[in-house]
Amino acid sequence: MSQIKNILFVMYDQLRHDYLSCAGHPTMRTPNFDRLAAKGVRFTRAYVQSPICGASRMSFYTGRYVHSHGAAWNNFPLKVGEITLGDHLRKAGVESWLIGKTHMSVDAEGMARLGLAPDSVIGARVADCGFDVWVREDGLNAEGPEGFYDEKRSPYNEWLKGQGYPGHNPWHTHANSGVDAEGDIASGWLLQNAVQPANIREEDSETPWLTRQAMEFLSQPHKAPWLCHLSYIKPHWPYIVPAPWHNLYGPADVVPPVRDAREKADPHPVYKVFMNNQAGQAFSKDEVREAVIPAYMGLIAQCDAEFGKLLDFLEETGRMAETMIVLTSDHGDYLGDHWMGEKDLFHDPSVRIPLIIYDPRAEADATRGTTCDALVEAIDLAPTFVAAMGQPPADHILEGRDLTPFLHGQTPAWRQAVFSEYDYSGMALAGPGYLDMEPEDARLFMVFDGRWKLIHAEGGFRPMLFDTAADPDEFTDLGASADHQAEIARLMVLLNDWARRPAQRTTISKAEIKGMRGKSRRVGVIIGAVAPEELAPDLRAKISGRPERDYR
Amino acid sequence: MSQIKNILFVMYDQLRHDYLSCAGHPTMRTPNFDRLAAKGVRFTRAYVQSPICGASRMSFYTGRYVHSHGAAWNNFPLKVGEITLGDHLRKAGVESWLIGKTHMSVDAEGMARLGLAPDSVIGARVADCGFDVWVREDGLNAEGPEGFYDEKRSPYNEWLKGQGYPGHNPWHTHANSGVDAEGDIASGWLLQNAVQPANIREEDSETPWLTRQAMEFLSQPHKAPWLCHLSYIKPHWPYIVPAPWHNLYGPADVVPPVRDAREKADPHPVYKVFMNNQAGQAFSKDEVREAVIPAYMGLIAQCDAEFGKLLDFLEETGRMAETMIVLTSDHGDYLGDHWMGEKDLFHDPSVRIPLIIYDPRAEADATRGTTCDALVEAIDLAPTFVAAMGQPPADHILEGRDLTPFLHGQTPAWRQAVFSEYDYSGMALAGPGYLDMEPEDARLFMVFDGRWKLIHAEGGFRPMLFDTAADPDEFTDLGASADHQAEIARLMVLLNDWARRPAQRTTISKAEIKGMRGKSRRVGVIIGAVAPEELAPDLRAKISGRPERDYR
Repeated sequence: MSQIKNILFVMYDQLRHDYLSCAGHPTMRTPNFDRLAAKGVRFTRAYVQSPICGASRMSFYTGRYVHSHGAAWNNFPLKVGEITLGDHLRKAGVESWLIGKTHMSVDAEGMARLGLAPDSVIGARVADCGFDVWVREDGLNAEGPEGFYDEKRSPYNEWLKGQGYPGHNPWHTHANSGVDAEGDIASGWLLQNAVQPANIREEDSETPWLTRQAMEFLSQPHKAPWLCHLSYIKPHWPYIVPAPWHNLYGPADVVPPVRDAREKADPHPVYKVFMNNQAGQAFSKDEVREAVIPAYMGLIAQCDAEFGKLLDFLEETGRMAETMIVLTSDHGDYLGDHWMGEKDLFHDPSVRIPLIIYDPRAEADATRGTTCDALVEAIDLAPTFVAAMGQPPADHILEGRDLTPFLHGQTPAWRQAVFSEYDYSGMALAGPGYLDMEPEDARLFMVFDGRWKLIHAEGGFRPMLFDTAADPDEFTDLGASADHQAEIARLMVLLNDWARRPAQRTTISKAEIKGMRGKSRRVGVIIGAVAPEELAPDLRAKISGRPERDYR
Repeated sequence: MSQIKNILFVMYDQLRHDYLSCAGHPTMRTPNFDRLAAKGVRFTRAYVQSPICGASRMSFYTGRYVHSHGAAWNNFPLKVGEITLGDHLRKAGVESWLIGKTHMSVDAEGMARLGLAPDSVIGARVADCGFDVWVREDGLNAEGPEGFYDEKRSPYNEWLKGQGYPGHNPWHTHANSGVDAEGDIASGWLLQNAVQPANIREEDSETPWLTRQAMEFLSQPHKAPWLCHLSYIKPHWPYIVPAPWHNLYGPADVVPPVRDAREKADPHPVYKVFMNNQAGQAFSKDEVREAVIPAYMGLIAQCDAEFGKLLDFLEETGRMAETMIVLTSDHGDYLGDHWMGEKDLFHDPSVRIPLIIYDPRAEADATRGTTCDALVEAIDLAPTFVAAMGQPPADHILEGRDLTPFLHGQTPAWRQAVFSEYDYSGMALAGPGYLDMEPEDARLFMVFDGRWKLIHAEGGFRPMLFDTAADPDEFTDLGASADHQAEIARLMVLLNDWARRPAQRTTISKAEIKGMRGKSRRVGVIIGAVAPEELAPDLRAKISGRPERDYR
């Protein structure tokens, strides 16, 4: 019987579900992603628990909904005590290693409260969402007048300096900028510069650097089985890529935007502010799309090429037979669809992700190269990994479901709907001059049952609703339609049932709860008995006898 | 300006809201509880977050709903990482001490995962829901054929042995048993024995022993301000009390049961199994009520007398001016009302509690001896204590609300409804032969808006509904009434809005969230800008310049 020894869990950042050739993109070529799809199962309806880096990743790494772990936006710390994928795997004797990005923000106050030193083994794991760190590089070395976005040390930036790249932030001035006609920095932060090649040697750019870190990891002897979370920074913005990738694609390769004038006619108030923000405005211009999308595609092509090197290496070293390989992304990118830039909302380009799972076991032979259209959530990976390592996933903690049956050609009873959330309370558009909301109100929930997609908005707004059967492009918001109130009510029942789930009852398993039933009397807690005749003889004997003394 | 230096937080166990003379009981006399009510405010509509010891207490001690902390039934551990009243008060420089019961079950697996040693200062606090332990005595030294219910060391039992009480469990054989006509142990576990005096010297019984522990605490010098949680074990079962309290009350003092034949006609399926369990059956018999209730009243009278000693001491030592005093209970006791024994469900005798708060500050002078009928929850005490110590309660963690305005004669905008929960998944009646339910389904939620009380049952049952204006005794369950479906729907909206609240977003305050808005660009994250003209000059300067080298 074949066994999975290791798991290579590859995540890209902001990679759309449909920018793979195996997913049907008409111009994008991803031969190496397709190689994996040919060996595994491609899940065509996989959704993230929040279309934003930090919150989405905390769900991947805990196997729990955002409503459960609470780290609802970038830099909202994941609270100490939350149980991670790494914790579950360590119970199975499996190490969990991080190479790349997590966007984890540490609950420093919680760690101090519990006396957890950041430089202790346990403290370091708590600070890095349960992983042991091979190398952590969040790839957000942005710097403005008020300092760096991320104060953490950047191993990649340090390495660039070691290679002779000048300045204090070559991540920006070289890896993520070009050079303009005057010889000045053409910052990758400005969308007009996406057409430039980055001012860096190709092999020194972020994606090849992370691949080499992974190769080094894979080449080491490991005593224990492992999961390696290889978490790339790209194709996330800044949208700029070194030669030759910068001109592999051009405006002719850009697919038309999925947008419709109807969407601007009477938009939902929350959608409206997102659509009108700077990213939405910019990506609504064709010249921006034609500059940016070829760079985005070049970044993906570079990712694909690097992924090919990993596959080659695993094949050449005979490791494919023992390694589960997963390819996914933390969310998508609107790229001008629906008059939007970035991610944040729940149209498919944002909330739907690529997901390919290669299972080396013989049981998966029948499904190789197939697709699966079950409703899958990002939180399903954690229990799938635990199961792959031979352990029953702890279903009182992990809220996702093991995908193994689909990999093995089975059709299990499955969920009715997927849920996703978005907390925009920390965004400018929730504040004065825009929606001006309290933090508890600036939250959205998505319920998608495979046909109907409901977006419930807190704060007193009407909902949004799309019928993806009649309207696959999600152009027609039926949230105010009198004819669809019953549909909305039906989906709200699913949402509310979900919201009432006992998500925090994590310290006792369902089997342990069932095992408690009726046991207290056997340890002497006698409730409601009037006379000794009502008791079992052994219990009656236990509370009887003759006292040695009478104090009355 | 007067200041609160210390807080004496007195909790009784299973003390009904209406078994105080100041609450209008016709025969029960509680002169010392009434003394406190004359100095403070008595809250007439205070409700617990769950009518069961463990879950209710975890809500008192965290200031959070059961749905938030997850310790939903007795011996479901409180997960490591949950922030306690003690943690909040320590941030204000206030010590939190425990004397008596918590019914806390430790998350040993979570502590091991985080490397928290039970014998470290922090580990001990985590294991005792945030308190430093003066003495912990849960008072449940039950023993059956399969061992002790509670394996923890019992300081009280050890003390009894030291006083010469014989046997290995004098808690049972002396403190909680009498002697029958043959000279044998008349166990307090059997309701027929409630009429006996306990076989113990009065001053050695549990309530005086705990009072002496408190006196010792109060007599010590304390460097820091403190909260002392004096948590009595009584009048909780076993229902037996030493002389002279055992015959202070008799059958003539027993008020008639609040029950009606209509309740048995077509009861809700969950109510039916509770009503039919052994406690319900027993307490439905008049002879049981006439035996037990005088003992229960004797236990309360003893509690009241001991409380008087505390008040005397504080008055004599001039401490009343600096000490806030709170008197409450973790839940009530049906005592045969509604054909029920014990607690568990949401009729007022079970879920409603006594609550008296004495605030020594001059601002409270105008409210002394008054009552307040605002809808109050057990979780309101934690923020009230934090506020009393001069700190703003952390409202992203604490879900209750500061009661100080009511103490100071104000009428703040207030909540629409109170919520309570009951998880019966670990009870025999959820298992085979009874309701036979999965652990996620065996849960109830109560919403009470001051008039209408809705009980929503998971697992596909219809709801229960009471109109307490037309039916103050809660005899008529309107849950199946066609005329009341709109009322049920309205209350379900309140419940579901509550269920979707961001209860786990505890690592970032609302002020911090508001402070994030629009700040990322000032640290260099530029999203949606096409050309440099769109940037502020200082930001533009930050990303510009001339690169020293050209690598393209």
